[in-house]
Amino acid sequence: MKRNVIVGQSGGPTAAINSSLAGVYRTAIDRGAKKVYGMLHGIQGLLNEKYLDLSEHIKTELDVELLKRTPAAFLGSCRYKLPSFHEDIGTYERIFSILDKLDIEAFIYIGGNDSMDTIKKLSDYAVLTGHTTKFIGCPKTIDNDLTLTDHTPGFGSAAKYIGTSMKEIIRDSFCLEYPRGLVTIVEVMGRNAGWLTGSTVLSKGEDCEGPDLIYLPEITFDIQNFKERIEKLLKEKTSVVVAVSEGIRTADGRYVCELGNDINFVDAFGHKQLSGTAAYLAKFIAAELGCKTRAIELSTLQRAGSHLASRIDILEAFQVGGAAAKAADEGDSGQMVVLQRFSDDPYQSGTAVRDVHKIANDEKCVPRNWITKDGTYVTQEFITYVDPLVQGDVAPIMVSGIPRHLYTPKELYRK
Amino acid sequence: MKRNVIVGQSGGPTAAINSSLAGVYRTAIDRGAKKVYGMLHGIQGLLNEKYLDLSEHIKTELDVELLKRTPAAFLGSCRYKLPSFHEDIGTYERIFSILDKLDIEAFIYIGGNDSMDTIKKLSDYAVLTGHTTKFIGCPKTIDNDLTLTDHTPGFGSAAKYIGTSMKEIIRDSFCLEYPRGLVTIVEVMGRNAGWLTGSTVLSKGEDCEGPDLIYLPEITFDIQNFKERIEKLLKEKTSVVVAVSEGIRTADGRYVCELGNDINFVDAFGHKQLSGTAAYLAKFIAAELGCKTRAIELSTLQRAGSHLASRIDILEAFQVGGAAAKAADEGDSGQMVVLQRFSDDPYQSGTAVRDVHKIANDEKCVPRNWITKDGTYVTQEFITYVDPLVQGDVAPIMVSGIPRHLYTPKELYRK
Repeated sequence: MKRNVIVGQSGGPTAAINSSLAGVYRTAIDRGAKKVYGMLHGIQGLLNEKYLDLSEHIKTELDVELLKRTPAAFLGSCRYKLPSFHEDIGTYERIFSILDKLDIEAFIYIGGNDSMDTIKKLSDYAVLTGHTTKFIGCPKTIDNDLTLTDHTPGFGSAAKYIGTSMKEIIRDSFCLEYPRGLVTIVEVMGRNAGWLTGSTVLSKGEDCEGPDLIYLPEITFDIQNFKERIEKLLKEKTSVVVAVSEGIRTADGRYVCELGNDINFVDAFGHKQLSGTAAYLAKFIAAELGCKTRAIELSTLQRAGSHLASRIDILEAFQVGGAAAKAADEGDSGQMVVLQRFSDDPYQSGTAVRDVHKIANDEKCVPRNWITKDGTYVTQEFITYVDPLVQGDVAPIMVSGIPRHLYTPKELYRK
Repeated sequence: MKRNVIVGQSGGPTAAINSSLAGVYRTAIDRGAKKVYGMLHGIQGLLNEKYLDLSEHIKTELDVELLKRTPAAFLGSCRYKLPSFHEDIGTYERIFSILDKLDIEAFIYIGGNDSMDTIKKLSDYAVLTGHTTKFIGCPKTIDNDLTLTDHTPGFGSAAKYIGTSMKEIIRDSFCLEYPRGLVTIVEVMGRNAGWLTGSTVLSKGEDCEGPDLIYLPEITFDIQNFKERIEKLLKEKTSVVVAVSEGIRTADGRYVCELGNDINFVDAFGHKQLSGTAAYLAKFIAAELGCKTRAIELSTLQRAGSHLASRIDILEAFQVGGAAAKAADEGDSGQMVVLQRFSDDPYQSGTAVRDVHKIANDEKCVPRNWITKDGTYVTQEFITYVDPLVQGDVAPIMVSGIPRHLYTPKELYRK
């Protein structure tokens, strides 16, 4: 690389997104980039000329290791939807004038579906206007719903956290006896794709029976059937533990969390903010069956739990970041780096690039045949797929008993 | 020891309660106990003659290590309130006839305040009736609210989990920008004692500002003042993170979680089941200030998070279990093992025994001068006290990427 690189993070944070940032930085510097800028709060910040020079923040090898272990987006994130250039050419002119001013050779954006939409639009505009900046997408989402890549960085660490937490919850749920039994409903993220909810199956092993039922958003949720299954299980077991996706819907298309009274919000991409599915179902089951129930939302913890990151995930996230910088340096644009799986056992993977036009705004769901016929569990194929992605640990760097992160840039939170 | 030992677990589970069980088992066997029985679901199970022979479950040194790393109560727990023998002598006669049948020399009960009440009553009855079984209590509670002991096993691991999770939540909260800012309210366990909520301060360090406000149940909660403080913070910061105890109350004595509409339950000891404090405050702040808010309940995860246990805590829990078996063997009864702190830095501690009559049904709260004058944070004294208790890690024994526990006895969950 001969000129400068700019990198941004977008969408929901993960435990691995900063490992990709570290990978972009290291490879860009190694390949000769003069400066590596970081957009503050993604393209939304860039539009306001908010960015920083990463070399002022990543000064040592230890800083790189800390950054790999730091959850959420070190640079801040955004949910900005770039208008098409037919709608608003001014925004494009503004972005490209800033890129020119900063002498940007490569623009790398780490994010999910919505971020790949941004890469697609910017690279198309560059082609149309003959602009030389290269635009590369770097996959990131705990939801694992991007197409063409075997899986997405961030998913493995979230799956490891979810499998571990589910196992601890199941243990906890057997402690106290209740006259009519205990039903624990655990709500997991994943609006339309059940990868994370399905990963609760990782709790299953010689030492744990795993969740009793798993409800993915890919399958229509039948609340009467749900009740009958729990009723049956309560005849056999003192404690029943159920995993539900936040995005399960009834046959009429309504989200289960909408059946209660809680107000749900809509974000800039028109996505409903889902929450309260477990709480609603816990109330429903308590009222119908008269048993003790509890609702647990894994909430933000499942995407920010870097203290329990998967080694495979953190290493692949780093590789993917490096591969993005390499692709841009080799002249690619309008591409996303993908992960390819060569073998399940022993697990082997590598990176490649794919045209972002084939990825953006498309969601990869759990295949129907990886879900049991009755729609209440995942199959062995699902387990074989997820299992390699949670292997190995990244030991936190502990200072005074608590994991150390790379400090937060003050620009992120001080007004 | 010449005869048999029986051990039970009671009250809310923790990440360290099984390490105490392992300690009781090891020391009892080392000191010559013939059999070590485990009550299933504490004294409630014992009354139904539900128990197991621990040597059939702890067969190897590796099993001991797995048990130390297994969260929640391996034997199951209960919230059974033993009536006084004036009220119900039949229950006492039943318990002592079972103890005689099993040839029990020592009865060790691992639990919190309510469990020490059980030890007190049983040892009193034994004295009155000339029964030779020794009754020893072993402290356990994440709440850290037992008197006479410097701290309780279980607290350190919960504090480490809470400090770490709070740090990850704070990181996550800076990622996305909202026009009027984001307020995150994190609800922590601890009905009357703020030890756990105060431990969110452990997130503070060179790399993290820590929570902005900490509300303990020891201080009357003023919702207007709370709103004004957040309003002021939102002028300086894009994201405000607040830790609240589930047990905070307003000046009229009502729990904040009761201000909403959610129904709260009462357990066998007359304790209200608290939940929904953060959810209520998040809705209140969103309505009053028009900012984005979110509520996070650390829920069961904070007491079951053995994958992030404190080494000091797990080792002390093991010691306390051993000290209980030793005390009984040396002829003590009606005593609870306590932890004594000799030095903060370097941290040094040891065990002793104290008369359980001076402990039962008394709660140790955070001293007023360990809370700031304005009641919205903890002081350096609090940090100096908690800090040593979260030091060191107990690496989980990972199998296929997920922590391995000692398997659950089938009697616990199969009907």
